[in-house]
Amino acid sequence: MERWVRHIQLKPDISIKELVKEMGKCGVFSAGRVAKAVEIYREMLRKKSTIFMGVGGAVIPGGLRNVLASAIREDLVNVMVVTGANATHDLIEAFGGRHVRGNELVDDATLRSRRISRIYDVYVPQRAFEIFEEKIQPIFAKVFRDGSRISSAELLRRIGLELNDKNSFLKAAAEKGVPVFCPAIADSILGLQAWLYSQEHEVTIDVLKDIKEIFELASEAKNPGAVLLGGGVPKNFIFQSMLLTPRSFDYAIQITMDRPEPGGLSGATLEEAKSWGKISKNAKTVMVIGDTTVILPIILASVMEKG
Amino acid sequence: MERWVRHIQLKPDISIKELVKEMGKCGVFSAGRVAKAVEIYREMLRKKSTIFMGVGGAVIPGGLRNVLASAIREDLVNVMVVTGANATHDLIEAFGGRHVRGNELVDDATLRSRRISRIYDVYVPQRAFEIFEEKIQPIFAKVFRDGSRISSAELLRRIGLELNDKNSFLKAAAEKGVPVFCPAIADSILGLQAWLYSQEHEVTIDVLKDIKEIFELASEAKNPGAVLLGGGVPKNFIFQSMLLTPRSFDYAIQITMDRPEPGGLSGATLEEAKSWGKISKNAKTVMVIGDTTVILPIILASVMEKG
Amino acid sequence: MERWVRHIQLKPDISIKELVKEMGKCGVFSAGRVAKAVEIYREMLRKKSTIFMGVGGAVIPGGLRNVLASAIREDLVNVMVVTGANATHDLIEAFGGRHVRGNELVDDATLRSRRISRIYDVYVPQRAFEIFEEKIQPIFAKVFRDGSRISSAELLRRIGLELNDKNSFLKAAAEKGVPVFCPAIADSILGLQAWLYSQEHEVTIDVLKDIKEIFELASEAKNPGAVLLGGGVPKNFIFQSMLLTPRSFDYAIQITMDRPEPGGLSGATLEEAKSWGKISKNAKTVMVIGDTTVILPIILASVMEKG
Amino acid sequence: MERWVRHIQLKPDISIKELVKEMGKCGVFSAGRVAKAVEIYREMLRKKSTIFMGVGGAVIPGGLRNVLASAIREDLVNVMVVTGANATHDLIEAFGGRHVRGNELVDDATLRSRRISRIYDVYVPQRAFEIFEEKIQPIFAKVFRDGSRISSAELLRRIGLELNDKNSFLKAAAEKGVPVFCPAIADSILGLQAWLYSQEHEVTIDVLKDIKEIFELASEAKNPGAVLLGGGVPKNFIFQSMLLTPRSFDYAIQITMDRPEPGGLSGATLEEAKSWGKISKNAKTVMVIGDTTVILPIILASVMEKG
Repeated sequence: MERWVRHIQLKPDISIKELVKEMGKCGVFSAGRVAKAVEIYREMLRKKSTIFMGVGGAVIPGGLRNVLASAIREDLVNVMVVTGANATHDLIEAFGGRHVRGNELVDDATLRSRRISRIYDVYVPQRAFEIFEEKIQPIFAKVFRDGSRISSAELLRRIGLELNDKNSFLKAAAEKGVPVFCPAIADSILGLQAWLYSQEHEVTIDVLKDIKEIFELASEAKNPGAVLLGGGVPKNFIFQSMLLTPRSFDYAIQITMDRPEPGGLSGATLEEAKSWGKISKNAKTVMVIGDTTVILPIILASVMEKG
Repeated sequence: MERWVRHIQLKPDISIKELVKEMGKCGVFSAGRVAKAVEIYREMLRKKSTIFMGVGGAVIPGGLRNVLASAIREDLVNVMVVTGANATHDLIEAFGGRHVRGNELVDDATLRSRRISRIYDVYVPQRAFEIFEEKIQPIFAKVFRDGSRISSAELLRRIGLELNDKNSFLKAAAEKGVPVFCPAIADSILGLQAWLYSQEHEVTIDVLKDIKEIFELASEAKNPGAVLLGGGVPKNFIFQSMLLTPRSFDYAIQITMDRPEPGGLSGATLEEAKSWGKISKNAKTVMVIGDTTVILPIILASVMEKG
Repeated sequence: MERWVRHIQLKPDISIKELVKEMGKCGVFSAGRVAKAVEIYREMLRKKSTIFMGVGGAVIPGGLRNVLASAIREDLVNVMVVTGANATHDLIEAFGGRHVRGNELVDDATLRSRRISRIYDVYVPQRAFEIFEEKIQPIFAKVFRDGSRISSAELLRRIGLELNDKNSFLKAAAEKGVPVFCPAIADSILGLQAWLYSQEHEVTIDVLKDIKEIFELASEAKNPGAVLLGGGVPKNFIFQSMLLTPRSFDYAIQITMDRPEPGGLSGATLEEAKSWGKISKNAKTVMVIGDTTVILPIILASVMEKG
Repeated sequence: MERWVRHIQLKPDISIKELVKEMGKCGVFSAGRVAKAVEIYREMLRKKSTIFMGVGGAVIPGGLRNVLASAIREDLVNVMVVTGANATHDLIEAFGGRHVRGNELVDDATLRSRRISRIYDVYVPQRAFEIFEEKIQPIFAKVFRDGSRISSAELLRRIGLELNDKNSFLKAAAEKGVPVFCPAIADSILGLQAWLYSQEHEVTIDVLKDIKEIFELASEAKNPGAVLLGGGVPKNFIFQSMLLTPRSFDYAIQITMDRPEPGGLSGATLEEAKSWGKISKNAKTVMVIGDTTVILPIILASVMEKG
């Protein structure tokens, strides 16, 4: 049960898979946890788990857009819950807008006068938001046509089908039939645009329908697993989907920098979720304390199969 | 402009106000920031700012329910944006349910078998959620009567008016005319209950209406100020309300344990918000790194006036 | 054993003691932990514990110099272990140098050209270090006279007796007979100055003697208690003093922002120390996650007695 | 100067070098910073920098012992400053003791009764410390023979030469002529053992000599660079070595989970070090927020050359 710590052995041109194997031999701090996350992810794939992925934090501006699209295409995720910001920034790039590698030590008033919005050390030119508005309004006109009251997941599915950018995770998801929920959509630029559209059209986004739809997915999920990038609404919405069923997650991986002591759900331990019945008592779980942009690529590269 | 560090001088039976004054003399680390937050809050009150308060994290289970209700009654806050969890836990107590001081070092499977849900070191007996369901459903029947599609703020206002507990912040807000937005309401037990109600009744919660309502408040706000407890949806929804106006916040205080480097909005600096135009370039701002349950009572006790 | 969460009730002009009492009624997050720390500190005083205080982090530049001096004078601490930096910055002020309230968002190259060194948002004019050198060298000439190889504690005691500043914690400690250990003294400006002195004089600081001296204090300590401001060498040196005895700490309070997951001792839980026998298995302990400059004044103001 | 964010593209069997190259294309959050660290490290090697490595935190128990030994053997580091704990745990393994992969959610009183000491989720059997004592005392008898007052670096060099374990970083360093400083040696089990030895022998460890020795290295260093694993004494001692010279570090990489706001040096930004002249104003620097056990192997694997 307990095992000796063996130490990581490096070599030039070591592959990610080999390095993670080395990490698995060593202490169980972060390196050991990365290895454990890979082990759990592989078991989920082997057991054909239904994998719910929560996408919080600045994952798309941070550079993981293609990673998410690949993960969807390679069947590494089956249901997604995202923040409105991650949906918005995926669409910005799909519409031709770009993110810029900037600097966090900068005068923000100057950026403002240069019409640049900052996300830590990534810049978004205001122009990108203007393009976003130009492109999303006609899409709303199409996608709302068949329903004045649709769930966020249905909205994002229809938007995804309208896109022409293979690196868009929303497009990949729509094509693959992976539902993407955005229960806090009102809290985003995408939501603001939907509201602008609703000023002239009798439509709304029915977030209670999202509850129903994810509840059905949770009810039918096979050996359900949760992969949580950050916390926030995506983490909670995935976990609460199980509260409506007699079931719970059998696997859970979270990558976060939040800490548990202040009591918020984002940083809450996965153990805590067992007391709520969100995670089953014998579930395999691991919390990796680190940044998603470093940790997720390592995990996914390790579980991808050749060919 | 720059000033000498003078050191905190303690004495027995020192009052909060006196201690904060001492903190204001010293280094600008956390203690100095608490003093600065008090200074900014006082200026907001003097200038009759419209104060938007964001309530993220486990503020109600953590013991600040009465503090929020008092803050509303004493005109220290004018608009609120809350997580669904904080609304739910306020209602749980209003309906007679209780939170229990527990222990974070505990076996969660055992808690589960004892029908106790854990929020860090606070316990919630499952019975509290059953009472919640028994009480909220008849209230839904009343409050949805006049509208099948209402905003979260209108829903919470109507619920607040039905309550009989003077310590409920939702009741205090409803009585005082302080709007309480909950744009991610679907992501909470309260949302789940609303969905259950919607199964039998043709109703929904129109989160796009929330955008409209907070936009109107932002447009009319006088010397607008933001007081952010934690981050999450409340922080972003408050800030984005200004994106629809030519205006921006003149004051901002955030209390958080989140950190900026991962790029998520919760831990983003208040400087960053200036690049977006959410905060004006000459705004007075301060970020206090600490736990809301310690820091907020100190700040509010210091700004409360006698009599 | 378990108790209901009651909520903090504020009032204008509430005293620190009253507020902490309120905190003690509520959730056990940070506010509850502050209350618990006060409870433990009071019990230590009642039981006439020998209290070992570890002083890590930027406590002196941050504004707690007088607080430490008062704590020593009022018998709230009996043995201290400090970083070289805290000793250095106490001496800087004793010699007439000052710390300046600055800004952490600043161009450091510019500060450099202005001969200002920065500690987060506190500035230290280079002139302060020059004064430090001018004043400390003659003191070394006096204090090393009677011994070419003295412990850091003996060195700091002799230096303390040479000072004329009642707000110096080193002076207060020397007068009160509170030993102040600085086992990593070589890692500080004070250490650099000692080394300069040693270039011309056959002297050194014998850190192994420090081990002997703190071991003797640990052996004789009554109901020993540890109060740890931050982590680092002070935390470890206090804890390891018990490894040489069959005894262990009966009380421990730590205030820190460090987290446990990376495995370093600074953020390690107090539970972990029980496995080493540094803390007794039935010890009363609490870890307050927060900044020392806010939390320590609250705790000490609460335990100080009038008159 | 500013560049578009391109997104990480994964593929099965991607090597570490390729992944880091991908990270370098994306946002500058953590992934971008890892790439930047590799870029800086490569430049240091190209410019034949003298590389000072600080080793704080639980690096050896955490599984990086072989990684450090390899880094020394492959000329990736030229001067080291370590905590006493990392030296102790290297020696424990060199003497045949082992670390065990355990669990951080455990009853520490039970561990105590099983004679196991815990470092987060790594266990150290008490037996390992007994073996340590048995083996280190005869080594002290040898290494102190030629000098009753030696620096920590000289002590560790002599101990390293006595070892028969090729994976010991102390042995690798001694053989390679890489000095290893341990200025806070009194604050460790190794220090306690030295003190025990000094009870019967007229010896001590002269930490002021360490200052002299590192000052000489700093004075002669070519394009000096600092690679800081965690903070603590190793970070400060490396930086302060430059205070005695007119020079400063031209490169600096830090990997840490500490944060800057509390003001302690461990979490202080590398910018701050410029105000002190520890880092030159045009230095290339990067701070990677993450755990050493994950980040360091990625960086070193990327800079290692084949054959």
